Amino acid sequence: MLTTFKATAKKLPDGLQVETNVRNFKILMDEPEELGGTNAGMNPVEALLCALGACQTIVASAFAPAHNFTFDEFHVELEGDMDPDGFMGLADVRNGFQEIRFVMHFKTDEPKEKVEEYAKFIERTCPVGDCLANGVKLVLAGVKID
Amino acid sequence: MLTTFKATAKKLPDGLQVETNVRNFKILMDEPEELGGTNAGMNPVEALLCALGACQTIVASAFAPAHNFTFDEFHVELEGDMDPDGFMGLADVRNGFQEIRFVMHFKTDEPKEKVEEYAKFIERTCPVGDCLANGVKLVLAGVKID
Repeated sequence: MLTTFKATAKKLPDGLQVETNVRNFKILMDEPEELGGTNAGMNPVEALLCALGACQTIVASAFAPAHNFTFDEFHVELEGDMDPDGFMGLADVRNGFQEIRFVMHFKTDEPKEKVEEYAKFIERTCPVGDCLANGVKLVLAGVKID
Repeated sequence: MLTTFKATAKKLPDGLQVETNVRNFKILMDEPEELGGTNAGMNPVEALLCALGACQTIVASAFAPAHNFTFDEFHVELEGDMDPDGFMGLADVRNGFQEIRFVMHFKTDEPKEKVEEYAKFIERTCPVGDCLANGVKLVLAGVKID
């Protein structure tokens, strides 16, 4: 069944700070000083990496019983390469990440081959990963002057 | 200059909860009860919407002087459609968002046409938007058994 998820992002008075809200949860984002901010929070491309890693982690947890896969601990390390000169208009490179790499860590007694299969399942199942790997239709649905 | 941004995501003991970390910042993510979690935080696809909205907001702030564009307030409302039956393997639909829509709100005295042009500039400049609109190469760079 199609489900619609919602969020808002609002500029705060201080520099580049942004408050994002979903239901009763919020995340404060900012840029580090070298990117023009006041470093009050992680920046949006870092939050994007967090969303991907969290999505993979939830898939790892949620699907384990159905795969008869047991593990004691799981974490993922992610990194993405971006050239800020792209969105600054200073170089002819894309504005977003050029590549995102991740390493999955399991504490488990499962055999190596089964762990590697499960890691691939996580990679291809994760909704945020699908959005990033295959792209999403983005629609500027309105511009309001309040 | 190519810059590498990094994050980690770690499964917590409670249900589907995940702690994500970037530098000295963290975000707790979870799923609502109807998606199997304990609702201790927003979920990863909601965080993805936040990352997109925050990125647009920072672009709105950071590039305004260069565009001779002034505004008093800015916020963006975002929503994305997803069918959880996709990643649950229950329906032949994609696992991620099928579409993401956003409405940008400005409090400004600028003329309507200039506001609409600036909104389009924000849309095409935002790095997270580029990642989502055009996709990113994702690389499972390793599977470690600790």
